[in-house]
Amino acid sequence: MRVMGTSYGCRLGLGSLALVAVVLASAPARAEVSAETAFVFNTFSFLVHGFLVMWMAAGFAMLESGLVRTKNTATICLKNIALYSVAGIMYYLVGYNLMYIDVGSYFGSFSFLYNTSAEELALLNADEATPEMVDAVVAGGYSVMSDWFFQMVFVATAASIVSGTLAERIKFWPFMIFTVILTGFLYPIQGSWSWGAGWLSEAGFSDFAGSTIVHSVGGWAALTGAVILGARKGKYGPDGSVHPMPGANLPLATLGTFILWFGWFGFNGGSQLALGSAADAAAIAIVYVNTNLAACAGVVVAMILTQLIYKKIDLTMALNGAIAGLVSITAGPDVQNHLMALFVGGVGGALVVFAIPLMDKLKVDDVVGAVSAHLVAGIWGTLAVALSADSFFEQFVAQIKGIVAVGVFMVVTSAIVWLVLKYTIGLRVDEEAEEMGLDKAELGMEAYPEFGHGSQSI
Amino acid sequence: MRVMGTSYGCRLGLGSLALVAVVLASAPARAEVSAETAFVFNTFSFLVHGFLVMWMAAGFAMLESGLVRTKNTATICLKNIALYSVAGIMYYLVGYNLMYIDVGSYFGSFSFLYNTSAEELALLNADEATPEMVDAVVAGGYSVMSDWFFQMVFVATAASIVSGTLAERIKFWPFMIFTVILTGFLYPIQGSWSWGAGWLSEAGFSDFAGSTIVHSVGGWAALTGAVILGARKGKYGPDGSVHPMPGANLPLATLGTFILWFGWFGFNGGSQLALGSAADAAAIAIVYVNTNLAACAGVVVAMILTQLIYKKIDLTMALNGAIAGLVSITAGPDVQNHLMALFVGGVGGALVVFAIPLMDKLKVDDVVGAVSAHLVAGIWGTLAVALSADSFFEQFVAQIKGIVAVGVFMVVTSAIVWLVLKYTIGLRVDEEAEEMGLDKAELGMEAYPEFGHGSQSI
Amino acid sequence: MRVMGTSYGCRLGLGSLALVAVVLASAPARAEVSAETAFVFNTFSFLVHGFLVMWMAAGFAMLESGLVRTKNTATICLKNIALYSVAGIMYYLVGYNLMYIDVGSYFGSFSFLYNTSAEELALLNADEATPEMVDAVVAGGYSVMSDWFFQMVFVATAASIVSGTLAERIKFWPFMIFTVILTGFLYPIQGSWSWGAGWLSEAGFSDFAGSTIVHSVGGWAALTGAVILGARKGKYGPDGSVHPMPGANLPLATLGTFILWFGWFGFNGGSQLALGSAADAAAIAIVYVNTNLAACAGVVVAMILTQLIYKKIDLTMALNGAIAGLVSITAGPDVQNHLMALFVGGVGGALVVFAIPLMDKLKVDDVVGAVSAHLVAGIWGTLAVALSADSFFEQFVAQIKGIVAVGVFMVVTSAIVWLVLKYTIGLRVDEEAEEMGLDKAELGMEAYPEFGHGSQSI
Repeated sequence: MRVMGTSYGCRLGLGSLALVAVVLASAPARAEVSAETAFVFNTFSFLVHGFLVMWMAAGFAMLESGLVRTKNTATICLKNIALYSVAGIMYYLVGYNLMYIDVGSYFGSFSFLYNTSAEELALLNADEATPEMVDAVVAGGYSVMSDWFFQMVFVATAASIVSGTLAERIKFWPFMIFTVILTGFLYPIQGSWSWGAGWLSEAGFSDFAGSTIVHSVGGWAALTGAVILGARKGKYGPDGSVHPMPGANLPLATLGTFILWFGWFGFNGGSQLALGSAADAAAIAIVYVNTNLAACAGVVVAMILTQLIYKKIDLTMALNGAIAGLVSITAGPDVQNHLMALFVGGVGGALVVFAIPLMDKLKVDDVVGAVSAHLVAGIWGTLAVALSADSFFEQFVAQIKGIVAVGVFMVVTSAIVWLVLKYTIGLRVDEEAEEMGLDKAELGMEAYPEFGHGSQSI
Repeated sequence: MRVMGTSYGCRLGLGSLALVAVVLASAPARAEVSAETAFVFNTFSFLVHGFLVMWMAAGFAMLESGLVRTKNTATICLKNIALYSVAGIMYYLVGYNLMYIDVGSYFGSFSFLYNTSAEELALLNADEATPEMVDAVVAGGYSVMSDWFFQMVFVATAASIVSGTLAERIKFWPFMIFTVILTGFLYPIQGSWSWGAGWLSEAGFSDFAGSTIVHSVGGWAALTGAVILGARKGKYGPDGSVHPMPGANLPLATLGTFILWFGWFGFNGGSQLALGSAADAAAIAIVYVNTNLAACAGVVVAMILTQLIYKKIDLTMALNGAIAGLVSITAGPDVQNHLMALFVGGVGGALVVFAIPLMDKLKVDDVVGAVSAHLVAGIWGTLAVALSADSFFEQFVAQIKGIVAVGVFMVVTSAIVWLVLKYTIGLRVDEEAEEMGLDKAELGMEAYPEFGHGSQSI
Repeated sequence: MRVMGTSYGCRLGLGSLALVAVVLASAPARAEVSAETAFVFNTFSFLVHGFLVMWMAAGFAMLESGLVRTKNTATICLKNIALYSVAGIMYYLVGYNLMYIDVGSYFGSFSFLYNTSAEELALLNADEATPEMVDAVVAGGYSVMSDWFFQMVFVATAASIVSGTLAERIKFWPFMIFTVILTGFLYPIQGSWSWGAGWLSEAGFSDFAGSTIVHSVGGWAALTGAVILGARKGKYGPDGSVHPMPGANLPLATLGTFILWFGWFGFNGGSQLALGSAADAAAIAIVYVNTNLAACAGVVVAMILTQLIYKKIDLTMALNGAIAGLVSITAGPDVQNHLMALFVGGVGGALVVFAIPLMDKLKVDDVVGAVSAHLVAGIWGTLAVALSADSFFEQFVAQIKGIVAVGVFMVVTSAIVWLVLKYTIGLRVDEEAEEMGLDKAELGMEAYPEFGHGSQSI
């Protein structure tokens, strides 16, 4: 039960905590939410918001499918369903315990492997449930496995970010090995510092739904990988020119972005971690609205800026504007008023317009723009929390601490893993395979065998 | 608080209102829903059903992406994500206040811009919540911003309808300016007449989830635009012949239709505006079933009719049959029994089979059939409410009033906006751009750069 | 009311039943869920989980669209939206009554056609609701039509399984006639044996969400059809060689699989049939987690096996691994601990890797692998329930009974229907039409008119 208690306390708003206490302590004298009703609401919130976040895995799959070339499309589809699967297993076997119990006591805590909490099992297996059995379960606040489900889809999101950046040249199995380590160890360790009630949360670091803890983590891993892996062949000319390699299926990229936007209501809304009181319900409503406003602003600002700078609007920039707006608001959708949400999301949209060409200048080849949308906007969003804090300066310092700590940890550990893979089994397909496309080289198939020239086209 | 009160009273079924009153007035002597529990249910219903309706934006994007030609596909994707974004911002800045407060007192009511309701803010920001603070929030029935979220996705739906009809020849920025005016002003003003407790609701006009208020509004704006904009070059021969310009990606159009169907459970189900009682839950269940049955009937009738008339079934006609069935039931999914829902949806499916070729005879070039599916079926569905009324004739007259009032208002105001745009910055791309495709001309990119002949193909 | 009572009792876990009884019998002395609150939760669970399952119809449509060739794509899209529509109407007119009342008394029970339960109608139509009216409704446990909605989407799933296997050569209208009979009669009759509280449930057969009752039923119908219909022309050479006919759009197939996975949380989660207590909420959470773990294991095992056997990973095999994992866990996501869920899903993933080539050896031409993923894995999953039973042997025998009874019934009745269709109006398009593709032959259109060589390509 310690696991939930910790997580519950850590990611829960203050107003909610007070209310839950009231509910748990007293008989329903007023027309309030009963403790068991609150338990059902809290659990159902994790499940509903969790399935929305699970659906984001499809969003990344479609976004990336749309933005790679046809000759690498089947491979990116495979990577996306494979990484979600690996994340689910690793976070069950290792990650959740590591994140929400603690790193030190970890190796004695395999008990949950047998099943969910002892109290819930006792209730579910009882021939006749007693009020005491129900009370023991209800005291937990929500069902343990609903929390596990909700936390699991977050680690999958972090892993999804990596696949897009490194597309079109990374080998399949080394990528999967990195995913195993990211989802089983790297993500949970840094997550334990904040959401696991560790030193970063004690230092005042605040990241409501994971601008840093999820999106920057994926972004740092992707950036480190992109640097070590190198750019796609022919992407950057010796004269500094950038050779565009346009995505093969932009409606799919659009669909993917809409899926992410849709799923983000679960990502941010569910991170209230409770629905069992009027305060929690109202807080979630505010989170939904801020999430939507920030994404809207990201799109509009990205569109206007590209029109002003390039005299044309780039669809993929508008899509990345939406994602950047969403990432930006993720650290503080609860604390910001609605105009602030528009501002935070709009700045996110602007950042992505400048970050994507900047990455190309630095010859960091990010196939889908994920580093710009998830890492750059994630840093901005984390800092922006300070704008709504009681003490701007104090919060700003705490936010910097979190950003730097997570960044250093992720860059160092990711680099080690990427480099070990590079110098052992190899990280990159050979030139011939890259030219031919990973679909034929690694999978022996084509994503669109009847369309156009298939893998010969570019 | 007046805003919610108004909206709550206006769009809520009578049975529900009575129950809410009971719940709010008494301590829980019976095993009923407590007031705070009802608040959570009502708020969560807005959020869950709201995210389903938000997802309809992706449905329109896919439907339209599938039904335009490849050379205009990236542009229609961009328009769809852009219009959703603009709708979200405009309805926040202007529309919601205009619709649910009132037009006259509007210019003094910017206070909500700072944030949500004062009562909710007080509760959320309190160090220690008092029962009085909770009661003050609970008295509102639901969280203000959950209602805003739910209403916002409706205006986005209305705007989505317009983009499909006018595809393949309208300029991007003039379309966006129209969207600003539609979502910030036109939709909210007519919406205030009925859902805002205005003169149309007093006149007895009944439109549960918006056959007229949402779908016909989009349909009228689209129709007016199509007439002013003119047909695509080559669509109609001088001899009255119709040149088919088939959609480039029918699986995407199918996906879009499924998304719309899925989202419609939110559109109609959430329009009960409450979930906090057995009566509300039962009413929503009936709404879901009627929504589904009407869509099923729309598909089946459209299929059988096209088989009988054309000896072949047209997939796009079946898809439009589903949409027409859904639009038809939207005005009265709560009042009709299930056989009536089959009838209403089936007639909707039949109407679309006749309306689409009729539009072509009138040389109104509607790229995706949105006027037939949303306006024609919307009028039918609004009239059909009278079939289930206590007094058919009285209700029929009220429905006619609403249809005519909204129609006249939308045609006149849309025409003014379209004409002003036409004679100032211009509404239509030049012939060369239309020939080349909007993707290359306006965006400088291709949606499917590797497939077939790309923009040269037709 | 008998209908619900029956269904409620039959598919509800034991712990839940006990709790519901407590809730209904007593005033809220403890801080428990009130009876009316439980009613709202139960109803909302049916609706939310039901809309997730409805969305699976889109998943099948995309999966099958991606796995057929371009020349048959529009037809498979049409079949998928048509079969969902027919299922919805037939299950309303005939199926639900047949399944949940009983076959014998069926012909006198058309009363529900007029509308939902009398108690709910009385409440909804009352000018002033009395507490007695509310209590009468609440005593049902949930809204009747929410249960209908949830059961209806299951029959649609069974029908969806058939269309993929028989793609690319079956005529449209005979397929629709089979769908009418399957959804109106065959599925409900066998469903009445178990979920309708019939002889199979009395025999101890346990199938939580339908590994046998839904997935094998679709699988048997598909297998029988495939045998009677014969393979696609050119699929199997006279020398025993297998000519691959690769799917035209693998990102759509990937999307379809993600949709199915997403929808499966509704399929299995909602099959708890209640959410109105802590025990039900906890049970649903466990079901979600087991569902996800089984699918993850299915993917990972299918990937590793194909790598080991074929030295390459086949994307479509990984997708079918996910589906097989999901089908496998469907019979017992509630009773198994999480490691068991990994095992059950992993075996499902392995089975599909061997079953798909085996089907080809038997010259059973299953275009999308549905028989392997839904029937083979469905049988395995149903048997696996015995692994978690109190008495393995007793449960195993009961499971065998159910599998055999449903299998024999479905093969015999399906065969009769397929054969009658074959020897009357004909089941298969002629050779020329098959060569040309069903889209041109039966629909007179192309799914992707601008891509590649369209229907001439393969």
